[in-house]
Amino acid sequence: MEEHPLTLLMNPRSIATVGAGNNPLKMGTIQALSIIKDGYRGKFYPVHPTEKSVLGHRAYPSVADLPEAPDLAMLIVPTDQVAPLLEEFGQIGTRRAIIISAGFKETGTAGREAEERLKETARRFGIRFLGPNCMGIINSEISLNVTVAPLTGPPGFLGLASQSGTYLTQTLPYLRKHGIRFSKAVSVGNEGDLNLIDALEFLGQDRQTRAIALYIEGIRDGRRFIETAQKITPYKPVVAQYVGGTAAGARAGASHTGAMAGPDEVYDGILKQAGIIRVHSVEELYGHGWTLATQPPLQGRRIAVLTNSGGPGTAMSHTANAGGLEVPPFSKQLQDKIRALIPPHASCGNPVDLTFHLDTRLLSLTIPELVMSSGEVDGVLLHGAMGSGFMRAVYPHVSELFPGLTEEQFLELFREDLSENVALPVKYGKPLIISSFFDHEDDYTAAYQAANIPVFDAPEKAARAMLALLRYSEISRRKKIVPPLLPERAAEADRIINEAVSSGRKNLDEYESKRLLAAYNFPVSRERRAGSEAEAAAAAAELGYPVVVKACHHTLPHKTGRGLIFLNIRDESSLLQAYRAVQEAAGPGLPVLVSEMVQGNREFTAGVTRQPGFGPCVMFGLGGIFTEALQDAAFRAAPLSETEAEELLFSLRAAALLGPFRGMPAVDAAALVKLLQQLSFIPLLHPQIRELDLNPILIRGHAPVVVDALAVLDGARHSPAR
Amino acid sequence: MEEHPLTLLMNPRSIATVGAGNNPLKMGTIQALSIIKDGYRGKFYPVHPTEKSVLGHRAYPSVADLPEAPDLAMLIVPTDQVAPLLEEFGQIGTRRAIIISAGFKETGTAGREAEERLKETARRFGIRFLGPNCMGIINSEISLNVTVAPLTGPPGFLGLASQSGTYLTQTLPYLRKHGIRFSKAVSVGNEGDLNLIDALEFLGQDRQTRAIALYIEGIRDGRRFIETAQKITPYKPVVAQYVGGTAAGARAGASHTGAMAGPDEVYDGILKQAGIIRVHSVEELYGHGWTLATQPPLQGRRIAVLTNSGGPGTAMSHTANAGGLEVPPFSKQLQDKIRALIPPHASCGNPVDLTFHLDTRLLSLTIPELVMSSGEVDGVLLHGAMGSGFMRAVYPHVSELFPGLTEEQFLELFREDLSENVALPVKYGKPLIISSFFDHEDDYTAAYQAANIPVFDAPEKAARAMLALLRYSEISRRKKIVPPLLPERAAEADRIINEAVSSGRKNLDEYESKRLLAAYNFPVSRERRAGSEAEAAAAAAELGYPVVVKACHHTLPHKTGRGLIFLNIRDESSLLQAYRAVQEAAGPGLPVLVSEMVQGNREFTAGVTRQPGFGPCVMFGLGGIFTEALQDAAFRAAPLSETEAEELLFSLRAAALLGPFRGMPAVDAAALVKLLQQLSFIPLLHPQIRELDLNPILIRGHAPVVVDALAVLDGARHSPAR
Repeated sequence: MEEHPLTLLMNPRSIATVGAGNNPLKMGTIQALSIIKDGYRGKFYPVHPTEKSVLGHRAYPSVADLPEAPDLAMLIVPTDQVAPLLEEFGQIGTRRAIIISAGFKETGTAGREAEERLKETARRFGIRFLGPNCMGIINSEISLNVTVAPLTGPPGFLGLASQSGTYLTQTLPYLRKHGIRFSKAVSVGNEGDLNLIDALEFLGQDRQTRAIALYIEGIRDGRRFIETAQKITPYKPVVAQYVGGTAAGARAGASHTGAMAGPDEVYDGILKQAGIIRVHSVEELYGHGWTLATQPPLQGRRIAVLTNSGGPGTAMSHTANAGGLEVPPFSKQLQDKIRALIPPHASCGNPVDLTFHLDTRLLSLTIPELVMSSGEVDGVLLHGAMGSGFMRAVYPHVSELFPGLTEEQFLELFREDLSENVALPVKYGKPLIISSFFDHEDDYTAAYQAANIPVFDAPEKAARAMLALLRYSEISRRKKIVPPLLPERAAEADRIINEAVSSGRKNLDEYESKRLLAAYNFPVSRERRAGSEAEAAAAAAELGYPVVVKACHHTLPHKTGRGLIFLNIRDESSLLQAYRAVQEAAGPGLPVLVSEMVQGNREFTAGVTRQPGFGPCVMFGLGGIFTEALQDAAFRAAPLSETEAEELLFSLRAAALLGPFRGMPAVDAAALVKLLQQLSFIPLLHPQIRELDLNPILIRGHAPVVVDALAVLDGARHSPAR
Repeated sequence: MEEHPLTLLMNPRSIATVGAGNNPLKMGTIQALSIIKDGYRGKFYPVHPTEKSVLGHRAYPSVADLPEAPDLAMLIVPTDQVAPLLEEFGQIGTRRAIIISAGFKETGTAGREAEERLKETARRFGIRFLGPNCMGIINSEISLNVTVAPLTGPPGFLGLASQSGTYLTQTLPYLRKHGIRFSKAVSVGNEGDLNLIDALEFLGQDRQTRAIALYIEGIRDGRRFIETAQKITPYKPVVAQYVGGTAAGARAGASHTGAMAGPDEVYDGILKQAGIIRVHSVEELYGHGWTLATQPPLQGRRIAVLTNSGGPGTAMSHTANAGGLEVPPFSKQLQDKIRALIPPHASCGNPVDLTFHLDTRLLSLTIPELVMSSGEVDGVLLHGAMGSGFMRAVYPHVSELFPGLTEEQFLELFREDLSENVALPVKYGKPLIISSFFDHEDDYTAAYQAANIPVFDAPEKAARAMLALLRYSEISRRKKIVPPLLPERAAEADRIINEAVSSGRKNLDEYESKRLLAAYNFPVSRERRAGSEAEAAAAAAELGYPVVVKACHHTLPHKTGRGLIFLNIRDESSLLQAYRAVQEAAGPGLPVLVSEMVQGNREFTAGVTRQPGFGPCVMFGLGGIFTEALQDAAFRAAPLSETEAEELLFSLRAAALLGPFRGMPAVDAAALVKLLQQLSFIPLLHPQIRELDLNPILIRGHAPVVVDALAVLDGARHSPAR
């Protein structure tokens, strides 16, 4: 495998900074201090125009004066100095850079131009860079931290790629208190060169990284994002937060890193397609990421809930159950074993609730071990293991009753060796997740954190982290994704499109749209175009009554509610009446479409839209009047593998409609999967097609039939899907 | 107003304990220490069989030896001693008790009987009590804390009523760190006497309490719960967490406090009906409760997002916007004012993003004040105000650059007077909510907490707390709820029901069910019951073709898919064919129903079910094949006021279907509101009716027509709605 461009950037043998000096209130200085103080063993070369020495290291007046070409250049300088400096580094042979400086694309037109110049300079020298407008990197494996915040503690297992630098700087003290530790973290800033996808790819290959967290404001190269993630997610969990999917989120992201955002529901589908678990807060991004990075996989749905407190036990059971986990009652044998250990009024059936009880060994070792070794559950949620946190709170009250005992001596009375307690997940290969209202100041919380067992400060959060393990167990068992082979382009389709394009039309008419689909073997309603009463009558006779009569012209893309459609015509006289009515409503001389009358028992819709960053996406949803009212639709980026088309099909909230339902047969799912897959190929085979709308797709018996369709051509104005 | 039974219990002038001694590891002792040490100024009488003195207070060998009848007795004794002791207290004249002891209803049959005996004893003496199996109370107004956990800090504003004692004991250190303080808190345990609703009512009247939080595992007296909450919520916000709505949650709750739980979706509707904001974690219960208790109301939807960091700013904007808040771009004037203050690459449009910046005064005072005084927003979300937390983290790196300065002196350099910063919400009457990754150890976080401004440790959480204010602003503007007047019982309805009941039937047939509805002026389809071909033909002729023919017999409550319904019959010969087919399928001699054929443009369903704790509830949902597939239905407890019926109607996800829609007229909402209200009266007027199912209700033009109905009688076996 070729070395990843981030490998050298994340593992430099030498780093030069420009912008770090001796003023401790300057960002550059603080960042240089992180390099110097946090354990990095490579060489450090500060470039400074006036200082002889920076932070105790010999300083060099210019890039040209450096004793060697550093592996990595880091620029924390005013915007206009960035490109010239990058040029200087290029000239001495440096090929990796981190550009912290802001003021580029995120600020508007002038900034965008400056960023282009920067990229041009980098390209000229083959320099690969992070930023501009980023906060740097952390590589805990080599104790390298170039951010403004100090990094302490041993190396971790969670990789982060973030479009916000805050999530590897301001949050470091927060993460330390929560026992969460990065393997490597990358702030991608404006993504002038190396981007979130590069970082994802790098973390996917990185052996230290056991799970990956992504903070996303917008994705530029959707296809590569999906393919990169799909390669990683079968063996390494990825969680992501996306915040660009509202008007306010999109606007905020644009002014932050110039990110190009798309609708929330599109990203929702694309993250599923990528095999990524979506979260909705940075707390879950870290907490679920850490759980996935540290705990053994969940091998089934059965969990035990162990607690000293009914409320948290009930809340954990409820939250876990609501998300798809089971809290099965224990067997009589297991209950009997637990019953023998606990107060008579305590419950032992799962949840086990010891009630207020000071024997924490029972709660945190004896019973979890019984439960884990029983084979009756696949994971354990534990609330109430607490020691010094509670005892320290109680000490002022009870101190008089322990004459002569200091607080520390008092706490020592209750201190236990917790090594066996925290070894349980590894010993039994089952996940253990802790809920505690006591933070790292409690010795239990501290011991769990030190042993890489996640501790959450609310029972529901612990349960949701267990649900993240469940989601990942589903993803890891996902059907294989075989990249689809696109079919040959159909000559008939080309002909239809070219004709429309060359006559400057904005869309195909219904007949053409369906002919296009038919050229790719879509099941469309049988129909004839008729330019006269006689033709209409002949068509109806050929198709067989009942039929439908519709106006059919590219200037009439939307026909509903305008007197342009007549359904269920049962004889020739009604047909002629309808023909004339349509002529009247549409304008004389326009052709009509005479179609078979399809009696559907269910109604769906599918389509192709173009989405920022992702190009053509396929939509599938409930059809008919419910399309708008219920907004039960899902998206995937084209092209679709069979697995992806099948997942799209069954991702409807109303997926029950696809099965045998109220006396109706099951829908031919294979036919719909095929249809969605074919649909996803069309915009790739025919880039002139900007949007395609198949609405409705009726289910006749069990078979789908496309009853109306509209293809919108590129360059045409058409309101976007949102 | 009569004194509330909890007033004396929460404000006793004297307390006696039984079960507290001098062993500091006993629960009773720890609780007595809380009474003694946390500032309570009333009298404290320990009853102890052997000790002369308990915790430095004179002990009394028995209840009879007490020098006076204490206002409050507290029992922390083995289960079998509780009733006898209560008797003794009753005899000396004590009328309030808190029973901490467990082992009652929550443990099964024997415990349930013991609890009944306890209740009987209390009733005999007029003793009102909390518990058994509870954790006690906190009244910060008089520094009274009877729980196992120490209480510190000044009185607060959040009232808590909880079916879990943990939420006022184990969580106290957690709450202290988050700056959240109770006014009063009540653990209701098994609710042998005083229950969650009593506590809610009491907190509603309590002037110290500005918002109320409820932790709920199950409600026993639903009607009283709703009415109590509806009296409070117009002027005092109530938030609630309900955890009984899954199988696992219900089972856990039953073994915890013997709570009787109901389906999640029913509670969801009932909490809305009550005007209560539902949350889904104890963290939100506290955090949203505290926000509602401390912040000025949100007067509109417009918020400002102020930050030093793009990621959190984008995440706050996105979360707030997704929940219905607006993050409007500031006016040019306001942007110009802000632009003058901030770095050139920082954005000033809303969000304001200062980017990494050490001038926290700008972020936390100058700009918020500009924004609040502008009149352009109704509230402010602020992220990034941090001082000693960040500086303490940075100190080890920079200490060499500040020779001779200790850490404390270093921190002192950055310390500011924050009194103006934290005064903003009161000064401008607009809510301010803080997001910070730095906890109470940071001087900014501490200052905000001390000033009762909520601080959340993730941007999304701060945004969600602002959304809680938005929800409450909607609730406070809710239409007045006028208790409905039930109509007279209709004699015709009585006759139909009595006839069926007296012949031992399980349900009414469709004809009877609709006659019953018609007696209350429901719009039902016109129809005739026919016992012969001739009758059927005459009925059809009278009604006018097209008609529907259906089997009609109480033994055939479910007709779909069994050849018992023929729609759209257009002439007499088809009618007679249908008549015979129904006779064949249903069995000869059974009557048929000949009904007008109602052509609906939309389809709904409504019904009455009985729910644990709430009695009859009204359901309204999407009808037709979508009822099951989409589960778009909502519930309210009967009877319904006009406001409640209207809210039920518009609570559908697919509420857009009610308006003018795709060329169809708007549904006659007033008629549907009336229908739902009338429906809610029937089970109260006719308790023999256990369930009612109106499915479908078709919309003809704009008017609802009940096309099929089924009334199930009490005592009949029928699968519940879930």
